[in-house]
Amino acid sequence: MNKKLQVCLTPALIPLYKIEDYIVVIIDIFRATTSICYGIENGAEAIIPVSQVEECAAYLDKEPTYLLAAERDGEIVAGFDFGNSPFAYTADKVAGKTIVLTTTNGTHALHLSRKAKKIVIGSFLNLTSVCNWLNEQNENILLVCSGWKNNFNLEDTLFAGAVVDRLKTGNFSPDDPAIAANDLYDLAKNDLDGYLKKTSHSERLKALGIERDIAFCLNVDTTTAIPVLDGDMLVKL
Amino acid sequence: MNKKLQVCLTPALIPLYKIEDYIVVIIDIFRATTSICYGIENGAEAIIPVSQVEECAAYLDKEPTYLLAAERDGEIVAGFDFGNSPFAYTADKVAGKTIVLTTTNGTHALHLSRKAKKIVIGSFLNLTSVCNWLNEQNENILLVCSGWKNNFNLEDTLFAGAVVDRLKTGNFSPDDPAIAANDLYDLAKNDLDGYLKKTSHSERLKALGIERDIAFCLNVDTTTAIPVLDGDMLVKL
Repeated sequence: MNKKLQVCLTPALIPLYKIEDYIVVIIDIFRATTSICYGIENGAEAIIPVSQVEECAAYLDKEPTYLLAAERDGEIVAGFDFGNSPFAYTADKVAGKTIVLTTTNGTHALHLSRKAKKIVIGSFLNLTSVCNWLNEQNENILLVCSGWKNNFNLEDTLFAGAVVDRLKTGNFSPDDPAIAANDLYDLAKNDLDGYLKKTSHSERLKALGIERDIAFCLNVDTTTAIPVLDGDMLVKL
Repeated sequence: MNKKLQVCLTPALIPLYKIEDYIVVIIDIFRATTSICYGIENGAEAIIPVSQVEECAAYLDKEPTYLLAAERDGEIVAGFDFGNSPFAYTADKVAGKTIVLTTTNGTHALHLSRKAKKIVIGSFLNLTSVCNWLNEQNENILLVCSGWKNNFNLEDTLFAGAVVDRLKTGNFSPDDPAIAANDLYDLAKNDLDGYLKKTSHSERLKALGIERDIAFCLNVDTTTAIPVLDGDMLVKL
């Protein structure tokens, strides 16, 4: 019997799924899940995603050794160690450290998925690694796009489509959103950056001056570590 | 200043929009909005969409001349005049009549959109007619896909993409779902039926023995009437 391979296009649709029946992959390509994959690859001991800057700051009282990452309007918040750019998550900065990271859309998706069998983090950086692991699990899979303010975005959907594409040869039954995501990925795969340039979100990000980050987030298979949720922390699988 | 051209991929996402700022097009290709367009084209005086068979039956006490359309599991409900097949909505049956139609997904989408500036009904049958009218309104447009049990489906998204495609030359700014829908339509447009055959919903409908209905629902520009919501009734614009 085929396992389900489904794509949840926005966190607002998570309640439609019986989440405890799935392994969930959380996707927030620009930039949370990319930074998380890069940080765990580079030896971060753990990454704790939170939604509010205040919540992030509160960790410093409990654990003075934690690094804090928070950004508002593209600027690092005063008193914090770094922002959300994946370039901050290099080995010299994060190896052996625990990082508290603010991310609105990604944290929301994680929170709503918390009853899943297992939650892992996906990005183009660890695409093949995640797909190979998913292929070995023999479980129903739900790819959760964090989207933008609870609505659909293209970059997360394209990544979901890339995963569907890689799992095509496995014994999975894709649903309509998975078929659509795969077809969109197929259209875009030879020039992800060019394809995404026509989106509204891309305009927003360009206005923030993070085009270099965007290009980095679209690098495929530069890492192999798979971050997995353990309690409230993301650690290496 | 460009008007917005947005696609709401499922009724569950309607609350994300300030609906009173938009003209809404309700889309439920298999088969509610197709049957409604065909019925109004063929001279039905009004069509009243309701969600429950019981609600539908209750109309008969109030208005004995109303025709009632209700179907469960592909069969016409005993005591009703016809089911949901568009083939029932021919001029000899519906001209001058008011029809009460049960449709779960479509009624749900209509109900959640009721505060819109105006609500019209779209299907492949009246595609060009609806697009020409939309193009003349100089208003923000929200294309609402009724979907399947609050989730995304391909047939409604393809139709939304067809509308986006026709409005490309106008002064509209498409959002990410509109861009995605347009690209999917572009992939599928030369063989809508073939494209949809790979979907899960198509399998469900095939099992109900309504392949002839599906082919009918994918006919493009066979009608010109635009149904519009007036109170709780859909009438000719």
